[in-house]
Amino acid sequence: MFKKILIANRGEIALRVQRACREMGIASVAVHSTADADAMHVRLADESVCIGPPAARDSYLNIPAILSAAAITGADAIHPGYGFLSENASFAEIVEAHGIAFIGPTAQHITMMGDKIAAKDAMRRLGVPLVPGSDGALATLAEAAEVAERIGYPVLIKAAAGGGGRGMKVAQTAGELAEAWQVARTESKAAFGNDAVYMEKYLDKPRHIEMQIMADSYGAVVHFGERDCSLQRRHQKLLEEAGSPALTAAQRDALGETVTTALKGLGYRNAGTLEFLYQDNQFAFIEMNTRLQVEHPVTEMVCNVDLVREQIRIAAGEPLGYDQSAVKFSGHAIEVRVTAEDPDTFIPNPGLITTFHPPGGLGVRVDSALYGGYRVPPYYDSMIAKLIVHAPDRAQAIARMRRAIDEFAVIGVKTTLPLHRRILDDPTFQSGEYTIHWLEKFVAGEA
Amino acid sequence: MFKKILIANRGEIALRVQRACREMGIASVAVHSTADADAMHVRLADESVCIGPPAARDSYLNIPAILSAAAITGADAIHPGYGFLSENASFAEIVEAHGIAFIGPTAQHITMMGDKIAAKDAMRRLGVPLVPGSDGALATLAEAAEVAERIGYPVLIKAAAGGGGRGMKVAQTAGELAEAWQVARTESKAAFGNDAVYMEKYLDKPRHIEMQIMADSYGAVVHFGERDCSLQRRHQKLLEEAGSPALTAAQRDALGETVTTALKGLGYRNAGTLEFLYQDNQFAFIEMNTRLQVEHPVTEMVCNVDLVREQIRIAAGEPLGYDQSAVKFSGHAIEVRVTAEDPDTFIPNPGLITTFHPPGGLGVRVDSALYGGYRVPPYYDSMIAKLIVHAPDRAQAIARMRRAIDEFAVIGVKTTLPLHRRILDDPTFQSGEYTIHWLEKFVAGEA
Repeated sequence: MFKKILIANRGEIALRVQRACREMGIASVAVHSTADADAMHVRLADESVCIGPPAARDSYLNIPAILSAAAITGADAIHPGYGFLSENASFAEIVEAHGIAFIGPTAQHITMMGDKIAAKDAMRRLGVPLVPGSDGALATLAEAAEVAERIGYPVLIKAAAGGGGRGMKVAQTAGELAEAWQVARTESKAAFGNDAVYMEKYLDKPRHIEMQIMADSYGAVVHFGERDCSLQRRHQKLLEEAGSPALTAAQRDALGETVTTALKGLGYRNAGTLEFLYQDNQFAFIEMNTRLQVEHPVTEMVCNVDLVREQIRIAAGEPLGYDQSAVKFSGHAIEVRVTAEDPDTFIPNPGLITTFHPPGGLGVRVDSALYGGYRVPPYYDSMIAKLIVHAPDRAQAIARMRRAIDEFAVIGVKTTLPLHRRILDDPTFQSGEYTIHWLEKFVAGEA
Repeated sequence: MFKKILIANRGEIALRVQRACREMGIASVAVHSTADADAMHVRLADESVCIGPPAARDSYLNIPAILSAAAITGADAIHPGYGFLSENASFAEIVEAHGIAFIGPTAQHITMMGDKIAAKDAMRRLGVPLVPGSDGALATLAEAAEVAERIGYPVLIKAAAGGGGRGMKVAQTAGELAEAWQVARTESKAAFGNDAVYMEKYLDKPRHIEMQIMADSYGAVVHFGERDCSLQRRHQKLLEEAGSPALTAAQRDALGETVTTALKGLGYRNAGTLEFLYQDNQFAFIEMNTRLQVEHPVTEMVCNVDLVREQIRIAAGEPLGYDQSAVKFSGHAIEVRVTAEDPDTFIPNPGLITTFHPPGGLGVRVDSALYGGYRVPPYYDSMIAKLIVHAPDRAQAIARMRRAIDEFAVIGVKTTLPLHRRILDDPTFQSGEYTIHWLEKFVAGEA
């Protein structure tokens, strides 16, 4: 097992990984920018190293500084968390070239899944269902029109190198195609330095459903069921559930079987998540994330598993040690992402936290690096806490989340807690019959 | 179902019951002494009523004031929590006479179990194993000597009306009997107004193991397994585990069968706990608590059940709705009771809490009514928080508790957190091979 793990991240996820290390008896090293010297992940660290100024490109994305910190402290593994360098194949490669274990998949698989077209090609080959669309990048507008006619409008034009909604445009009809084509390519070029785009059938009422998998280095792969992440605003998830209110256990098992078979075929290692659109009883693979997800706790609650511990064990060369039949699903879990933002305008609202009082009691989990007296810096993601509840069924989980939100006191900055409370109260949310478009309308007062 | 429940308690247990009410959509009424106007259970209440001055006998034990509060607010049920009036049969009787549901057993069963001799008689009749001893109260010292010779020294002389260790004396040899007899009777008279005493075989290395049961009004009884509460100081529990490190699943099942059969025979209703001494593979019933226990959360964690919700459902006349086969045990849970006391001397240390930062993350539950800026009053029990962890096995639960304690910041008063951290670090504790005597020795630096 590793002696010391450097955690190349900040905030709640740095603390999350640190907690797993501590429980496993592994020393850990926190890294931080000058803006984060007072951060909780640093205050609770076994040891910590400052890796640069506030801007992420100079600190949390600064590969030489992070490698130096690992060398100085004698870390034998690096956990990248999510975001920052977690899906940077070069980083994974350089880390391993320095004789340090990268707690994640191989650089080759990160590269493959980072290229959305290559990812789809691989998944198609491995028997995973995809949304109908172009087989790869489109060379010309004429070619795009031909594909659109074949799969039927509306269609979506997407950046091959994209993510986060940039370089993505819908054409509802043939008349809108030329403009969507042009805008998507221009945005893609600007955002990713690459104007390659591809086309997909646009699903008008899909859900976002993703499967959590874990694979060891010896060919064993299990899934930990699905998460429903359909509640999104501008392609950012706000609230996640496990399991999905739309799926039966039989559908979960079938999708899990498809996914684990594919990843065995790929020779994949460590944690990963396959994201799907789901509509009319059909799943369509959209992308794979080769890292821990923000929303991993809902899976931990319903499966009674520590996913970070599993990541670390596997990276250290341990076999998974159990098979799919050992993975049991119990109850329902919901997570809300609490951000330091105005709940009406979503404008970030960093500043001094004068009071931080998280909720407690049965079935309530709080993953947060906040504390009273902490100043939320303006430089990074505005998420300040994840509030997770677990209960025997979805109705009880909703009731628990409502009371937990009511108890949660964060004073000093505006937060999205009031928005989450309104979502939880809404009959459409409570019915479970929502799509990825619902939240945008709800926020705009149109749902 | 009830419309409104008055919670006749304070502190963390008032908040615990309030949370269950809120999650069930039931309004709740907080009551409080003048010393508790700023308490969390009042601040978070739907409505609250002041029932008297600080002294418990004038407020939390003030039956007329509590009944008035229920009448004024229109409460149709009362939850007594633990302590205070929770095992007061007259209170239960008066409440029900006023047409208000008492969330607990019948007054008859409270009375029976409150009388330790009657309780043992009943359990003996119902096939529950007892520690060898006198059949009821002892009239004379000569009779006591006779029983002691029959069951063998050491023996314990106990107050029939007792509890909390008062009126309880050990005689190691026949030479010590007369004095133990005299002291036990005198203490019993002083503490309980009744000098009736009885005798039991003194077990030199027992564990304290208790079974949680729940019974509905229609004859259904299930058990939720055992808790090991052997870590006691002056008969006060400090740390509890579920399950017991000393029992196998087969032993749990067998004891559970014995206990549920007995309670069916008794016609018992609502939550209850049968306490046993356990030594040399033998269980000996010592008493039954006819209420929720402080340590109920460890059972909730391993059984994935909300015991307060079950109490409320049953008191409202709902059937249990499941049988023993539906009760599953998963993983291991540990609770530490954090008190505002000097961890070396156990002298209470009430005062202003300047910072309260509970631990979070996977498998950590905090039940506490503390908050930053709250002043712990000197009038009541010094427990300020219960920290509970759950993990797949005992070793991981211990590791999780250690890291959770390390994260827990309570500033302003001395707490027993450092003592708990030392207990968790101790090889004897970690081995699980401790008895009810171990903690006293550990605290004294002799273990």
